[in-house]
This record gives sequence, structure tokens and C-alpha cells, in this order.
Amino acid sequence: VSGSEGPPASVRVRAAGGDYPVLVDPGILQDLPRLLEDHAPAHRYAVISDERVAGLYGRGVVEACRDRGMEADLFPFPEGEASKNRSEWARLTDRMLAAGLGRDSVVVAVGGGVTGDLAGFVAATYLRGVPVVQVPTSLVAMIDSSVGGKTGVDAAAGKNLVGAFHAPRVVVADPETIGTLARTERAQGLAEAVKHGAILDADYLDRLVADAAELMEADVAATHHAVVRSVELKADVVSRDEREGGLRQILNFGHTLGHAMEAASGYAVGHGTAVARGMVLEAELGERLGVTAGGTRSRLSEALEPFGLGGTLEADIPLDEALGYLVADKKTRGGRPRFVLLERVGAVTGDGGWSREVEPALVEAVLAEGLGQA
Amino acid sequence: VSGSEGPPASVRVRAAGGDYPVLVDPGILQDLPRLLEDHAPAHRYAVISDERVAGLYGRGVVEACRDRGMEADLFPFPEGEASKNRSEWARLTDRMLAAGLGRDSVVVAVGGGVTGDLAGFVAATYLRGVPVVQVPTSLVAMIDSSVGGKTGVDAAAGKNLVGAFHAPRVVVADPETIGTLARTERAQGLAEAVKHGAILDADYLDRLVADAAELMEADVAATHHAVVRSVELKADVVSRDEREGGLRQILNFGHTLGHAMEAASGYAVGHGTAVARGMVLEAELGERLGVTAGGTRSRLSEALEPFGLGGTLEADIPLDEALGYLVADKKTRGGRPRFVLLERVGAVTGDGGWSREVEPALVEAVLAEGLGQA
Repeated sequence: VSGSEGPPASVRVRAAGGDYPVLVDPGILQDLPRLLEDHAPAHRYAVISDERVAGLYGRGVVEACRDRGMEADLFPFPEGEASKNRSEWARLTDRMLAAGLGRDSVVVAVGGGVTGDLAGFVAATYLRGVPVVQVPTSLVAMIDSSVGGKTGVDAAAGKNLVGAFHAPRVVVADPETIGTLARTERAQGLAEAVKHGAILDADYLDRLVADAAELMEADVAATHHAVVRSVELKADVVSRDEREGGLRQILNFGHTLGHAMEAASGYAVGHGTAVARGMVLEAELGERLGVTAGGTRSRLSEALEPFGLGGTLEADIPLDEALGYLVADKKTRGGRPRFVLLERVGAVTGDGGWSREVEPALVEAVLAEGLGQA
Repeated sequence: VSGSEGPPASVRVRAAGGDYPVLVDPGILQDLPRLLEDHAPAHRYAVISDERVAGLYGRGVVEACRDRGMEADLFPFPEGEASKNRSEWARLTDRMLAAGLGRDSVVVAVGGGVTGDLAGFVAATYLRGVPVVQVPTSLVAMIDSSVGGKTGVDAAAGKNLVGAFHAPRVVVADPETIGTLARTERAQGLAEAVKHGAILDADYLDRLVADAAELMEADVAATHHAVVRSVELKADVVSRDEREGGLRQILNFGHTLGHAMEAASGYAVGHGTAVARGMVLEAELGERLGVTAGGTRSRLSEALEPFGLGGTLEADIPLDEALGYLVADKKTRGGRPRFVLLERVGAVTGDGGWSREVEPALVEAVLAEGLGQA
């Protein structure tokens, strides 16, 4: 896909601290040092990657920066969600302090969702905040987490409970990096793409289904298209509501039940898998309430099928544990969980706010059925 | 001092996340529950105080809120600067999570500078940020740290190295609480008031000197006047430059050398004492450079005298350690410390930026003389 014929290479996001572009282009990683100088000039750069991605891309980025005469250092951390906590955040911070990085430094987060969230939170709090550049190398990070400025780490009580909004200076996404991901990892990211289609763009959902085989094989053109369209859709939402006071809540479709099931499984179920199941069940909830068009649940289920996300969860999840996590959800207000409901595929209901409470008995019935415990 | 004859009871501060008022009035603490409802409505309130202030004011605030039908809980922590770290921040966060406080909660920081910084950072990062109300009960917190949105904690490498800008919804300052402070603690706060006069308002500096005896005795009318004038001066600066990109740097007058001496003493020297000495030495630096009017150093020295802050430091501070901390200062750019210099008492030099580098040999000479090691 050439630049002139393919999707636009740059999507603009509005943020309180300043607008920023999301640049999506195959091969753009080669150009990262120049992009850093243009969009985030700094005395020194701290490149943060997990150890696996450090070997694939992080070290190369540091060397390319040095070749250009820029001061850059690599700060690797152990791979995996287990690193997304306050201890690893403190360790990275202390290593940067020991290296003497001052306020005129920039953090460059090269990696997947964990890296973007963790390195973003390091940047948000280092010397009360230094700029961050997001360089997502996983599909979930490109499609979802690198855009919108959410950063943070997990706590014992749950995921993403500690963090900050810290918009990046620029997001640089190279669809060619997706080839280094496992197939199941790609599916986790595509669940969020399906969500974007489900809440905002039925045509996009159809296109994802049509391209499913190519997307699962990391075809660059198909991936490029999906990343750009998802980023456009998400950018529009977070530009209108950066802090999730209103409209941004719609991005939580599938996440209220999804998070509860994911947590109750002890995180044995992947985030994308849980959100996929959550979308199907929240469509069911909407249909039972009479606000979601009949057939929406089955259409979503079918759309998720080619990504291996259409069926029931394999893990054994106790209903009362899932219900317990539901009440502890951080989107809870006044102690009651809230749901984003579809009007139909491609549109959410917006009357009376973007999310709503639902009668607990109905939530329990749908969740029980979804967990095969009805 | 009655409301109509005394200084204005409310000073407005501009901030990116929304303007906020600083309310200064003797006895205003009695009205805190109503002020919370007006300025920071919430489902639940988390009152954070150290254990000493919890007994003096924190518990009373919680009870007064409950009497009004509001949900409020006290989260006390051990008194002292040693609590201003990431562990205590994590503990407070986890206790709030365990208590089930959701996004519709507000943190109320009741106490001195440590409490405001620590509780402010808890609020800045709790579920990616909940509002904070600052209720300063020490002079340094009223005069300085509660206004401007800086929050944070110390790290092994130095003080205030981890944190965030998180503007409060409202600051509620009751000058009557100053009576519960030790005399030496009041002097620490008054050093920052002298700084406000030194950089911005020579008349205010004269008034502070004239009122010194009353201020040291915690006279309510004198304290009220000083707090309001300091807040007015600081509010004007931080309203024009919230993130310390430019003008706000002038508030660091005395702090470049002050911080270095404070750190090199192992924090045996109080912050206000170190800043006072730092102001005198930075005035000397300016005089030697020919940018500060002759006699400024001695006038500052004399102004600090009645607060017990005019002399040399009693601690034995190694020159090379102080020089080492100077280079590690977080305001350092490109590895060289920067200084705010006075033009004369009441005005800083503004040509070529609000801070500047100074030739290392001259800095060393002045610091050596100041430490009695010339």
C-alpha cells in the first residue's frame, strides 16, 4: 500500500496539554529518530521496552538515535503483565534518576500495551512529568491503548487502578512490527477493533470480518487499514472527551462484564477474549432491556468467530466472584456498575447519558447464562 | 480582623484543569463540610492527615461531614517527611481501594506540606485521578505549597522527584490553625513569605519585617495578612505559568543553592532555613555578576534576622557534596544548574529568560564562602 493510495498516514488527536498526531505507516520505525527530534526535541531520550521487544526494536532505536548524534539510553524491564505494577514503575524511575536524566528528557515507550501504560506512567510522574512518545508494536497497542493518553499500573485490588492521563507528543505505529506477534496476540488486539466497529461504524465491522484471514496472518495492507480506521474512530471520541466524563465511556462497551470475567478468572482469560465475550453479553443485556435491536448479539458473535473470539470462555469462572468484581469496577458510581448499551451494530444508545445502571437481577441472569451457570 | 475590613477572603488561581479559589479566613475550618459540597461535590470523601493533625483536625472534619449526611472516612499516616515516599503513597492508595472508593470520590488533604504533597499525589493517580481539596494547617503549606498544584513524593535520589501537577478544586486556609505549630515551624514557612517579597513586592517584605514578632507568635491578624498577600503573589505567578515553563521559575529563587545545602546536610537543615541561606547567597551571586543591585544581600540578611533565619547554617555541610547535589538538581538543563537572580529587592531579572546558568567557578566560590569553607 503506497502512501498516496492507502489510508491517511496521520490522524490528529485533541488533548488538553496539546494536540498530537498518530502516524501510521509501514516501515515508519526506520524514521523514528528524526520523528523524535521533530515532535519531541529533548536533551536525552529514555527508551523503555520489555526485554523481548528491546531485542527486536528497542536496542535498534537507541543505536539509530545515537548514530544521529542524539543522547539515548535503553531501560529494559521483564516482559509480561506482572511487570505492570508500582514496583517496576519505581525501579524504572530510580534507574532514570541514577542516570541523571533531567526535565529536558523524553520517554520513548517501544512495545505493547503493558509497555505503553507502564512507561507512560513513568513519564507522567518523572520529575512531575516529562513528555512521552508512544511507539506501539502490538496490535492492541496500535489499535487502542497508545491513543488517548491513559497510563497506569495494576494494584492488588485490580488492573489499571493507579495511573494518570498523560497524552503523548506523537504516536508512531509501524504495521510491519505486527508480524513478530503470535497469532493469538493479534486476535486480542482485533477484539478492540471489532468493538470500534460495533459502537461506531457497521461498515468497518463488515470490513474487519471480510479481512479476517489477512488480519490474522498479519498482512501489512489489511493491518494498516484496520489500525488507521480504529485510530480515526478512537481519536474522534477521545478528542471530544479526554477524561472520560461523558462520550469516552462508550469505549467501555463490553468492558464492564469483560473486566469482571477477566478478573474472576484470575486473568487466565485474555483481555481481548474477555471483552469479546463481554460485548456479546452486553448486547444480550440490551436486547432483553429492549434498547438494542434484536439480532445484534448474534451478529456480534458471528463477527468475532473468524478471530477465534466468538464462543464461550474456556476458563471456569465462579459467578459470585465475577459479580463481586462488577461492584468493585472503577467506573462504578455510587456503588452500582454502569453499562454502555448498543442501539444496533454501529451505534450506542445516548439518551440519558452514555452509560446506565441496569437492574442487578438482570445483570446476574445474563452473566450466569454467559458463564454457563444459568 | 473582620471580613469587610481585612484582606480579601478569596484569591482566584488559573489552572489548565479549571480555575480554583483559595479561601483564607480565620475560623473557616468550621465551614469545611459545606465548602466541600459546594466546590467538590462527591459520593465519598477521603480525609488524609498525618496522625498528629488527624487528632487536631482530621477526625473533627470527618465527624462534621458525617453530621451533615456526607460519607467521609479518615486515612491517617505516620507524621513526618519520612512518610512522603512511594511506599506510603501506595499504602494510602490501597487502603482507599480496599474501602471501595470509586471515581466519584474526593481526597481532602488536611495538614502541612508533607500531607498536601502526599495526599495530592494520591489523588492525582487514584483511578487515574480524582479531585483534591487542600486544607493547609501549617504556615508553609498556607503560604506556599497548597497553591499551584504541585504534588509528589521523595525518592532515594532526592526530594520531590516523583509526582504530578494536580490542581486542587479549592484551597481552604484557616489562619487560626497556625497556633498549634511550634515557633521554629512557623519560621520555616515565613522564609517562603520573605521570598515572595524578595522577588515580587518590596513593600510586602517591609511589612513582614515590621510584623515579625506578631507572626512568630502566630497572631491571627498578622498571619491572615501574610497568607493572603503571599497567596496573591504566588497565585498570580502560577496562573500565568502553571507548569514552570517560564515565569514560575522565579519561585525557585534561593532554592537552587538552598536545596543543595539542605540535601548535603542529610536534611538536618530545615527547608526554610536552607532557602533563607540560599536567597542570601544567590543575592551575593547576582551582586558579583553585576546584575543585582549592591546592598541586596545585606538587606535580605537583615530581613531574615527577626525570623531567626539570617545567619550562617549550623550544620557541617561538605562543599563537594553540596556541589554534587547542585548538578543533580531537577531544574538542571543539559547538566548545568540554573539560577533565578534578583535585579533588586522586589524584582527579578527577566532578560534572556527567568533563570540562567552561572559560571561554575563563581558558584563554587559563593557556596564555599556561604558554608564557611572559602
